[in-house]
Amino acid sequence: MALIVQKYGGTSVGSPERIRNVAARLLATQAEGHRVVAVVSAMGGVTNRLIELASEVTAGAKTTEREMDVLLATGEQTSIALTAMAINSLGGSACSLTGAQAGISTDGVHTKARIANITPEKIHELLDGGQIVVVAGFQGTTTDGSITTLGRGGSDLTAIALAGALKADLCQIFTDVDGVYTCDPRVVKDAKKIEEISYDELLEMASSGSKVMQSRSVEFAKKFGVVFEVRSSLNNNPGTLVKEENMSMEAVVIRGVSLERDQAKITISGVSDVPGVAAKIFQRISDANIVVDMIVQNVSRTGIADISFTLTKAELGKAKEVLEPLVSQFGGSAKLDAEDGIAKLSVVGIGMRSHSGVASQMFQALAEAGINILMISTSEIKTAVIIAEDRIDQAANVVHRAFGLSGATA
Amino acid sequence: MALIVQKYGGTSVGSPERIRNVAARLLATQAEGHRVVAVVSAMGGVTNRLIELASEVTAGAKTTEREMDVLLATGEQTSIALTAMAINSLGGSACSLTGAQAGISTDGVHTKARIANITPEKIHELLDGGQIVVVAGFQGTTTDGSITTLGRGGSDLTAIALAGALKADLCQIFTDVDGVYTCDPRVVKDAKKIEEISYDELLEMASSGSKVMQSRSVEFAKKFGVVFEVRSSLNNNPGTLVKEENMSMEAVVIRGVSLERDQAKITISGVSDVPGVAAKIFQRISDANIVVDMIVQNVSRTGIADISFTLTKAELGKAKEVLEPLVSQFGGSAKLDAEDGIAKLSVVGIGMRSHSGVASQMFQALAEAGINILMISTSEIKTAVIIAEDRIDQAANVVHRAFGLSGATA
Repeated sequence: MALIVQKYGGTSVGSPERIRNVAARLLATQAEGHRVVAVVSAMGGVTNRLIELASEVTAGAKTTEREMDVLLATGEQTSIALTAMAINSLGGSACSLTGAQAGISTDGVHTKARIANITPEKIHELLDGGQIVVVAGFQGTTTDGSITTLGRGGSDLTAIALAGALKADLCQIFTDVDGVYTCDPRVVKDAKKIEEISYDELLEMASSGSKVMQSRSVEFAKKFGVVFEVRSSLNNNPGTLVKEENMSMEAVVIRGVSLERDQAKITISGVSDVPGVAAKIFQRISDANIVVDMIVQNVSRTGIADISFTLTKAELGKAKEVLEPLVSQFGGSAKLDAEDGIAKLSVVGIGMRSHSGVASQMFQALAEAGINILMISTSEIKTAVIIAEDRIDQAANVVHRAFGLSGATA
Repeated sequence: MALIVQKYGGTSVGSPERIRNVAARLLATQAEGHRVVAVVSAMGGVTNRLIELASEVTAGAKTTEREMDVLLATGEQTSIALTAMAINSLGGSACSLTGAQAGISTDGVHTKARIANITPEKIHELLDGGQIVVVAGFQGTTTDGSITTLGRGGSDLTAIALAGALKADLCQIFTDVDGVYTCDPRVVKDAKKIEEISYDELLEMASSGSKVMQSRSVEFAKKFGVVFEVRSSLNNNPGTLVKEENMSMEAVVIRGVSLERDQAKITISGVSDVPGVAAKIFQRISDANIVVDMIVQNVSRTGIADISFTLTKAELGKAKEVLEPLVSQFGGSAKLDAEDGIAKLSVVGIGMRSHSGVASQMFQALAEAGINILMISTSEIKTAVIIAEDRIDQAANVVHRAFGLSGATA
């Protein structure tokens, strides 16, 4: 008898019929002899409607974050009640718990609280009584009893944190995709579902645009060693198991290829290579809350430096605005060039640590296809390049093929 | 500086605009130098939509009462968050509290819990900090942390119970009527708003069809001596103050006239007047969950009894069904007659205790109008008659006039 935590997102509980479907799945899991804890999100669309209501009530003025949490928490509370009722109406025995009732304590940072502690006694007690326990995702409580929410991807985090605290045998994240793929199947037709992937690989895939889950939840799972499976709530296919890396994983050099569109690049060239130049640039960027991805710096033999970095296209205008006055201050030949219409392609795999030649193999494949590389960045388990956005689909296909991901089962 | 509890019902918080209106009222009250606690209901229509959702999720099967409470409690939780946000957006300082957070403990009878205890420390603490405290009506928590709801009229009850526990100077129940009237203004055009009324009078008015508030809340207020005012959230008119009776109240013989339509009457005649007959009849009625209003019994000189009672027209069919087999068992000349198309008219006033002739004055007024009386029932502060339903408007007007309610300010 295993203890299994199953998380269902907003699409999976998006209508009364789907909630009944989730209830039936939970009952089927219990019928296999397991202890079952469900974590559910708000019904699809509900959170957005609540945010809209808040905006109307405050006539567009800033909403109070503490009250926003009280408001948004109703979304998941509705889902747990309905899911528990559905289970009971199908002949099962279920009990709902809000975040507070489930013993999920957080810090007091409203709308993006961090889980501080979980005291799962109530859940164990209900499980001991043969119940399916339905816990509200995305929410918790401060020590002085205020309701908090965990921010984006919060329900995944609830599921993983609960699985850790309950010492669950498995945590299943049900979503609308079948699992993690070697590449986006809309781009690479013969992309394969990955059976097992390490936390680090999934993190690198996520940061490169394969947004199956928020990095935060994966990091939490890694920190506490929670094994979880990403799978679809629309069918019974096995999903992708995410766990600590092991020997067999290293045998596969490249786990997958991920791509990120709508990137932009800023190059500041002709600045003197003296200490503090980069600091000044990125201080401004950070003050403007702009997220930068790749950073590359070259220094020529004459002591003149070029600094390039990438960011999303949406933030390009803002970045130019804050940097142009600075570049003027640098004086001399310093100038700023901005470019969009570019994209990022990454190959990810812990196996590349022990295999040389991954980068050159990737560059070779791109060169053969006549695709020009604008920037390169590497980490221990990732090699990423920036190329023209209109070549990204072709690039993904040739690289995917070059590493043999299309052929064998991943 | 007074402590004032204000309760706003579902219509008063029925839209973002109305919530802003409520927020402005609360701020105005605070600006007069008072400490303010608001109790709010779910936005109009929300509770019904949640009930519908529950019914869809359970495909019409019985819903779990514990989970129904978790579900319905989201309605008021939404309202408190929005109201607190609206206050803050208007430059005020407000904090919301769910029933549990406000310290409202109840028994464990889900969907119709009774308040067991209130520990208002958190509310006092927030008031000390200059905040307007917005509490969710209709809900509480059991000692083991389950969410409960208080049933119909629960938000009024929350307001009155909080006012009692906080030793508030005043509790204002904002609703969509201006207060309690000497008669329904739709029936008696010159009905007057009553300035002050005793708990008992309001209870008798309520039980006679003037449903300003649930009897339960009035009884609670009476038990704990909570003075409250019923007034409109749509204007600034003073409402009706409900309090313990006093000398000046007794000077007015009749406080008001109330009427109840859609009544029905069953008469069981020709039964032997032996002990236990009435008990048998009303046991069956009670087993069928039928609520009976007036009961009248007459015994003729030959020892044959007639028993009549009234009930709502809607329950007449069910009552006949459970009683007809019993009447057959009585045998002899026993027979059952059922009649609908009747209505009840009551005059209410604590003053009638010390004034004789109220009943005869009422009967005289009806006789002069040619209205026949089918049944009569009296209590210490009420005289009620059953008449034909098609004469009820006329009867209300003649009785209202006979007691001088139309002339002077009530």
